[in-house]
Amino acid sequence: MIHRTKTRVRYAETDQGGVAYHSNYLFWFEVGRAELLRDGGLPYSEVERDLGILLTVTEAQLKYHRPALYDDLLVIETSIPEVKRVRMKIATVIRRAEEEAPLCEGHVWLAAVTRTGRVVSIPDSLRSVVTR
Amino acid sequence: MIHRTKTRVRYAETDQGGVAYHSNYLFWFEVGRAELLRDGGLPYSEVERDLGILLTVTEAQLKYHRPALYDDLLVIETSIPEVKRVRMKIATVIRRAEEEAPLCEGHVWLAAVTRTGRVVSIPDSLRSVVTR
Amino acid sequence: MIHRTKTRVRYAETDQGGVAYHSNYLFWFEVGRAELLRDGGLPYSEVERDLGILLTVTEAQLKYHRPALYDDLLVIETSIPEVKRVRMKIATVIRRAEEEAPLCEGHVWLAAVTRTGRVVSIPDSLRSVVTR
Amino acid sequence: MIHRTKTRVRYAETDQGGVAYHSNYLFWFEVGRAELLRDGGLPYSEVERDLGILLTVTEAQLKYHRPALYDDLLVIETSIPEVKRVRMKIATVIRRAEEEAPLCEGHVWLAAVTRTGRVVSIPDSLRSVVTR
Repeated sequence: MIHRTKTRVRYAETDQGGVAYHSNYLFWFEVGRAELLRDGGLPYSEVERDLGILLTVTEAQLKYHRPALYDDLLVIETSIPEVKRVRMKIATVIRRAEEEAPLCEGHVWLAAVTRTGRVVSIPDSLRSVVTR
Repeated sequence: MIHRTKTRVRYAETDQGGVAYHSNYLFWFEVGRAELLRDGGLPYSEVERDLGILLTVTEAQLKYHRPALYDDLLVIETSIPEVKRVRMKIATVIRRAEEEAPLCEGHVWLAAVTRTGRVVSIPDSLRSVVTR
Repeated sequence: MIHRTKTRVRYAETDQGGVAYHSNYLFWFEVGRAELLRDGGLPYSEVERDLGILLTVTEAQLKYHRPALYDDLLVIETSIPEVKRVRMKIATVIRRAEEEAPLCEGHVWLAAVTRTGRVVSIPDSLRSVVTR
Repeated sequence: MIHRTKTRVRYAETDQGGVAYHSNYLFWFEVGRAELLRDGGLPYSEVERDLGILLTVTEAQLKYHRPALYDDLLVIETSIPEVKRVRMKIATVIRRAEEEAPLCEGHVWLAAVTRTGRVVSIPDSLRSVVTR
């Protein structure tokens, strides 16, 4: 399943090179997986509050093909190609709306941990959402 | 007492107008009061951990005179002109190093609150540091 | 005229106090005035590109009443109570969706400047949008 | 050559999980390579202004081993293992001061581009600094 959501590039997210600063893509990756979880019926706020776990980023990889510009309407495509016992891989592609060629492609690995940082199995209620 | 510390403008903090984005001054205000507390022997990390309170921003005011630029070495001048029962006013002036005219002047009001958001008196150990 | 738009609090925008960090409200103020201009038919990207001016923040003031939390859907209300020759005041109120009491109220003053920082009169095409 | 510089984790850089948000490491990577260039006698501000090129991030990869916490004093270790005709790889390791085990390891690839986005050869004056 590929989940799609949109966001706009804020002025605050640009830099003096005239494009979006490269770390902001990680914010947009976050927006993408948050909306994927919400659409699956389990908003991330409930993962933390009700399941008592955090999904912490253990690895991130990004390829920047072309720059996002101020006020660009971005389409964030999120998918979950791998779900292991305690970790899952979230892949994201960011395009400008109405364009085919991606601006950025990447993924993060998330691990389920308790508040105290202990790695735990991904709870079944979350697993069922991320393996749809 | 006026406390001074320095920081440099990061590329990430610039925007496509070619200057530092205006919200970053609030980060530098934070850096200034954090170093003031550390110099007073009570780092803010200990305020939260040992005193069990948070100092939360209830008001902020900033005047921007001239823009900070990428890689500028900034001098952050912090003082505490008012300390009330539960609140204190932290004033900040930001200059470019070696320059007289300020880039930005402003202040925040901080209130002492518990983790659950209840307003409490500023503990004596903190009060003695901020009223030096 | 009061313009309304919405945004959600990102995880990146929270801090270890468990609430949205106070500088993020300036991002949301920016989102509000960007959408107000777009709705008036003159997106800010065109102000910079076609009119050749920047609207630079010369003053900001914020009162924080209650904290915004992760994933809160925020309503950003933007209005323009004053438009002078070179400056205008943009007022913003931020509420949680479906709630009456504001989380934050504030304003910024914007000045029209050229790329080289010279203050100029607000162009008529922009003036007509911000005085609707 | 390994270059070392230090920075502190700001409150603004934490999230409600109680640790530094994962995108901030890219800011610290930037701080590391900026200081490396400055120490080599060619601050990045001069790369843009005098050489007329931008070093744009085309790829980033990060492994997060353990979280950085508020007010941690971080040591940023930067090295440049590969310099090609138009691109270079900047490797970064982030540790807590006085600790051996890294918090985060990663790298970015930077490409030399003109203001209009055309890829160009890395100028000799820059090449000599990054291949020391």
